[in-house]
Amino acid sequence: MARLWRALRRARGWAALAGLRARPDKFGGVSVDLGELRQPPRVERAAFGRWLRESVAQWRQEGRIAVWLRVPILQSGLVATAASQGFAFHHAEQGSSTLTLWLGEGPSRLPGFATHQVGVAGAVLDESTGKVLVVQDRNKTINAWKFPGGLSNPGEDIGDTAVREVFEETGIKSEFKSILSIRQQHQHPGAFGQSDMYIICRLQPSSFNISFCQQECLSCEWMDLEELVRTKNSTPITSNVAKLLLYGYREGFDKIDITMREFPAVYTGLFYKLYHRELPESYRNIT
Amino acid sequence: MARLWRALRRARGWAALAGLRARPDKFGGVSVDLGELRQPPRVERAAFGRWLRESVAQWRQEGRIAVWLRVPILQSGLVATAASQGFAFHHAEQGSSTLTLWLGEGPSRLPGFATHQVGVAGAVLDESTGKVLVVQDRNKTINAWKFPGGLSNPGEDIGDTAVREVFEETGIKSEFKSILSIRQQHQHPGAFGQSDMYIICRLQPSSFNISFCQQECLSCEWMDLEELVRTKNSTPITSNVAKLLLYGYREGFDKIDITMREFPAVYTGLFYKLYHRELPESYRNIT
Repeated sequence: MARLWRALRRARGWAALAGLRARPDKFGGVSVDLGELRQPPRVERAAFGRWLRESVAQWRQEGRIAVWLRVPILQSGLVATAASQGFAFHHAEQGSSTLTLWLGEGPSRLPGFATHQVGVAGAVLDESTGKVLVVQDRNKTINAWKFPGGLSNPGEDIGDTAVREVFEETGIKSEFKSILSIRQQHQHPGAFGQSDMYIICRLQPSSFNISFCQQECLSCEWMDLEELVRTKNSTPITSNVAKLLLYGYREGFDKIDITMREFPAVYTGLFYKLYHRELPESYRNIT
Repeated sequence: MARLWRALRRARGWAALAGLRARPDKFGGVSVDLGELRQPPRVERAAFGRWLRESVAQWRQEGRIAVWLRVPILQSGLVATAASQGFAFHHAEQGSSTLTLWLGEGPSRLPGFATHQVGVAGAVLDESTGKVLVVQDRNKTINAWKFPGGLSNPGEDIGDTAVREVFEETGIKSEFKSILSIRQQHQHPGAFGQSDMYIICRLQPSSFNISFCQQECLSCEWMDLEELVRTKNSTPITSNVAKLLLYGYREGFDKIDITMREFPAVYTGLFYKLYHRELPESYRNIT
């Protein structure tokens, strides 16, 4: 009797697998989502292995160049089976992983997953006093002055990250004015070996009473911009951007600003932000 | 006899698990790497489940705020077991996945994985003729003129991506001069729902005979910059950056350039690149 149940269960698992849809994409690949096994019967690894081998053989025959396989986290046992047939992780997020197998000629031409984290800091300058908002981080070996900032949240715009992080760390409210600098760094220890894009923005304060986060910061103050430019006690990038800011403060922010414009996106119906040097009206309006 | 072997195997699996090192990190978390199970004995999911539950209870008691668990792809069966105890994927790359469990108070404060892909295009301007290099992509519904470009490879600098992609698509050799514009776009369909950073660089050509990639491009030509500015047959971002480039071509590239400087990195011993507006010597040398 037990043997019969096992056989039945296996047959149901096989039937469920056979019902999976393989969706072709316009790049010549095919996608399968194991999340479509609704209230999944227990799919035996051996049965899945047979099904996958036969399916891949068929896709190869049809001239497909790649297979994308999405696996819900609770069915990750099937990941090992796919891996033993040459699949590798493309990426994973929270409750599922996505694997790929390249079937085309030569090395894989599949696009990779996200490669960069984006950190943003805010250089908040009080133009009436010439003072700029600086912090010292907790838990650092060197207590150098720097601009408050942190990692952007998924889907967050550069300027919004700067304003949010400045407020969370220092209690100061501010408004985005421009991008001042962009740093790209690879194999970043704080980015799980990935790349880091670190952007410093120019912000204008709309409040002035500091109430800094004791968890993140050791100290926080409004410092004379000239003092920040001259102190040894800051990071090289802070010192450099302080000089840039001083140049703009003295000779006009138009010398240093990378300003923002918003455009409607072609694909998503959302808007996107484009940052570049100010373009005079006469050039903007050429048609 | 078979039963005895199974019991022995189970005991060996348990002993192997007990020997795993849990490495504390400076943020109050603890990391375990299942890749350290060398020539792993078959670890039973049930045994792993018991071991993980007991270990997590202990780490919680010790005041640890998070657990990081790295799992080689061939042992992904254990991922499902960890998931049933509340672990979720943090990220996965090729041959392994990394899961996390937050033990601290409130919502997780763990840093996320990379959120952005970075695409780079090159606006290659032949200053002697006022012509700029443009392509039309294959496999697009609208055949609009645009600057050649593509996704950056892991660890690749912005300027290097621009030069490489321009050469691969058009056969033109060039040199990086500056960044002209940066676009940030979220929920990007071509980025697996992640964010996209798209950077256009100004490049100077060092060769002029086009030999374009038939696989990627439908057509490729040197086009009068003024014609590109005026044509309806280009994307909004191309048109906008063409106007910017025309402004720089006529009135000086210093009006539009975001230039690059290289600095030694504090952490890695590598160099990083910082992009910002040209800073006059007099300001650079303030000490």
